Amino acid sequence: MMRLSLIDWAACGIAGRAEGGFADWCATLTSLGPASRFDGRRSTMAEAALVNGTLSHALDYDDTHFAHIGHPSVAVIPAALAVADAQGAPLPEMLDAALLGAEASVAVGLWLGRDHYQIGYHQTATSGAFGATVASGRLLDLDPVQMCHALGLCSTMASGLKSQFGTMGKPLNAGLAARTGVEAVLWAQSGMTSSEDGLEGTLGFGETHHGAGADVPFVWRMGDVSHKFHACCHGLHACLEALAPIVDLRDADAVEIRTHPRWLSVCNIADPATGLEAKFSFGHVAAMTAFGIPTADINEFTDHCARRPDLAGWRQRVTVTADPEFSETQACVIIGDQSYSADLAIPEGIDKRAERVTEKARALVGARADDVMQAIDDDDLPRFTQLVMS
Amino acid sequence: MMRLSLIDWAACGIAGRAEGGFADWCATLTSLGPASRFDGRRSTMAEAALVNGTLSHALDYDDTHFAHIGHPSVAVIPAALAVADAQGAPLPEMLDAALLGAEASVAVGLWLGRDHYQIGYHQTATSGAFGATVASGRLLDLDPVQMCHALGLCSTMASGLKSQFGTMGKPLNAGLAARTGVEAVLWAQSGMTSSEDGLEGTLGFGETHHGAGADVPFVWRMGDVSHKFHACCHGLHACLEALAPIVDLRDADAVEIRTHPRWLSVCNIADPATGLEAKFSFGHVAAMTAFGIPTADINEFTDHCARRPDLAGWRQRVTVTADPEFSETQACVIIGDQSYSADLAIPEGIDKRAERVTEKARALVGARADDVMQAIDDDDLPRFTQLVMS
Repeated sequence: MMRLSLIDWAACGIAGRAEGGFADWCATLTSLGPASRFDGRRSTMAEAALVNGTLSHALDYDDTHFAHIGHPSVAVIPAALAVADAQGAPLPEMLDAALLGAEASVAVGLWLGRDHYQIGYHQTATSGAFGATVASGRLLDLDPVQMCHALGLCSTMASGLKSQFGTMGKPLNAGLAARTGVEAVLWAQSGMTSSEDGLEGTLGFGETHHGAGADVPFVWRMGDVSHKFHACCHGLHACLEALAPIVDLRDADAVEIRTHPRWLSVCNIADPATGLEAKFSFGHVAAMTAFGIPTADINEFTDHCARRPDLAGWRQRVTVTADPEFSETQACVIIGDQSYSADLAIPEGIDKRAERVTEKARALVGARADDVMQAIDDDDLPRFTQLVMS
Repeated sequence: MMRLSLIDWAACGIAGRAEGGFADWCATLTSLGPASRFDGRRSTMAEAALVNGTLSHALDYDDTHFAHIGHPSVAVIPAALAVADAQGAPLPEMLDAALLGAEASVAVGLWLGRDHYQIGYHQTATSGAFGATVASGRLLDLDPVQMCHALGLCSTMASGLKSQFGTMGKPLNAGLAARTGVEAVLWAQSGMTSSEDGLEGTLGFGETHHGAGADVPFVWRMGDVSHKFHACCHGLHACLEALAPIVDLRDADAVEIRTHPRWLSVCNIADPATGLEAKFSFGHVAAMTAFGIPTADINEFTDHCARRPDLAGWRQRVTVTADPEFSETQACVIIGDQSYSADLAIPEGIDKRAERVTEKARALVGARADDVMQAIDDDDLPRFTQLVMS
């Protein structure tokens, strides 16, 4: 599963580095070192983690874990990759460390709980920093005392607010989490000490950051990670999955979409005027589906598309209603006496997911996607970083 | 007043760089750039701010502002100095920016209030990061929109927990605050966007970090900054000021010390066995005073001194009692029918403070202190950094 996330993450990073504004920011990060970056430079492990975490989250198209309430790969993979790249570690070791880090970030996310998220923390960044610490610490072979200090240092560095959403600060939060993990580990390895129980202890991260301290039994959770297959707000994805199999959608006179109440305030712009607004519109993505425009392709979300008279006309047929019985991952489309349901929490089989991630990677980065997947299949980390980071 | 804080900060940094363990940590920070560091290296502005903030707080002997509940200079001066050093700005401009930054950090500290501190945040680091942002932004001439984004970026990066106290994570928190200020400003200048009201706005730093949002009228506050003149816990300082004028203290049969209740759980180790424990012992510092051992000299706080039989015997004469009527800055010493009071909140005159800071700087770094003060008097920033950072 971590191999799929690696393909998905790499494609998002390659596509994300062209996002407006980030090139000038990358140019301010001038350290020199052995770790590759999406912008083609090489720098210290910490700075590479910062750059790669940020750029790979720039499109907000990377994987999501609903229990974690966050995006595990953008915090954890950049940390693991920077360390593995600099140390010459084999790709399977990097993936093993990234998986443990991702599992840790989901577990910390569950432990902090929904209160932590609701009060305003960006779980991708806060829980993600702990995951990045675990991944980096495993690759650098910290002993248990050093690992304890590294987690303590992470607890005093981890940060990230949801109020950054909609700004460049959102992807930055992911990059900061990745950097925090690498720095906490390198600094603990250098002998820096910290509190012994920085996460759970008295005045620790949980207590200070509105953590619920929920009971979190040990199980593997990354099998449930969810890949985004549509280049728009995640609140629209269940609806898009429900719409996909509907033949003759374009001919429907009236389309009712039922969704969790939360999404009505998040992504229900009735008449979007820009490509960005189109990413937050039930009506528009339903119209795109009806007209056969691929919602997986980020380049289709243009201002022009948002204003196309035929789509704007058709989307008037759509009504969106909240159903408090629904979970956030469920949606239902009703046309006449037919209903079509989808639930993102019920994962597709691994083969189907692999097929869809492959399609998505090709849509994002073209033929290079196949070379990247071949390098991953060959366990060839130098080839992978060369393909992805240049 | 900022000139006094600069002397004090420089002396703490020069003395602090020898603190155990930090040399290996500094060696992990390998960027190259124009900004001087206490460890003799030169690096990027951000990394210099990180190193210098951390090393100058290593001894915990730098200045304190009781309203801010933190140490303003260790977060703000390293940021201002790194930028000024790299840009070739004159020393008065650096001091002007540092003063505005320090005022901002005290104001933010007051606005966040005591709840923020009590729940577990290290105000030196959290409020300090905003101060460091203001100082760096002034030196780099950000326009108002950029400054707004810089403060927004600071709001998603600022961190620091009190649970680090007693570990190397405490000074690190100060260094991180300084780095956050520099990075937030450089990144906003590069075009990075952030939330428009990251500190006070919805889901902003205040709301998420238990900020009280107290009413904070604009007045200048750094005139009330308090310099440490004893190389031990700040909770012992009022008591030491009260003890100072007592002639024949050594002959007293019984010495009662009255203090704010908080200090009984912080610095009342009855029989310290190590130099570190001695820094948290009313009885021991009273005994040092009685025996003429200068509590301003950090080198006097040794394991040997803590265990000296004559001092250990004498300190049995001391009783410490809590008086809930006292503020945290007040103490009273009672011997027979005589009582001697002190209150750190009533500042000494500027001349007296200058004299004591000078004495302290000489005690910490010897004759170099006079050269440093001369460079500050001459407004000679290159000379100052050369003297302090090599």
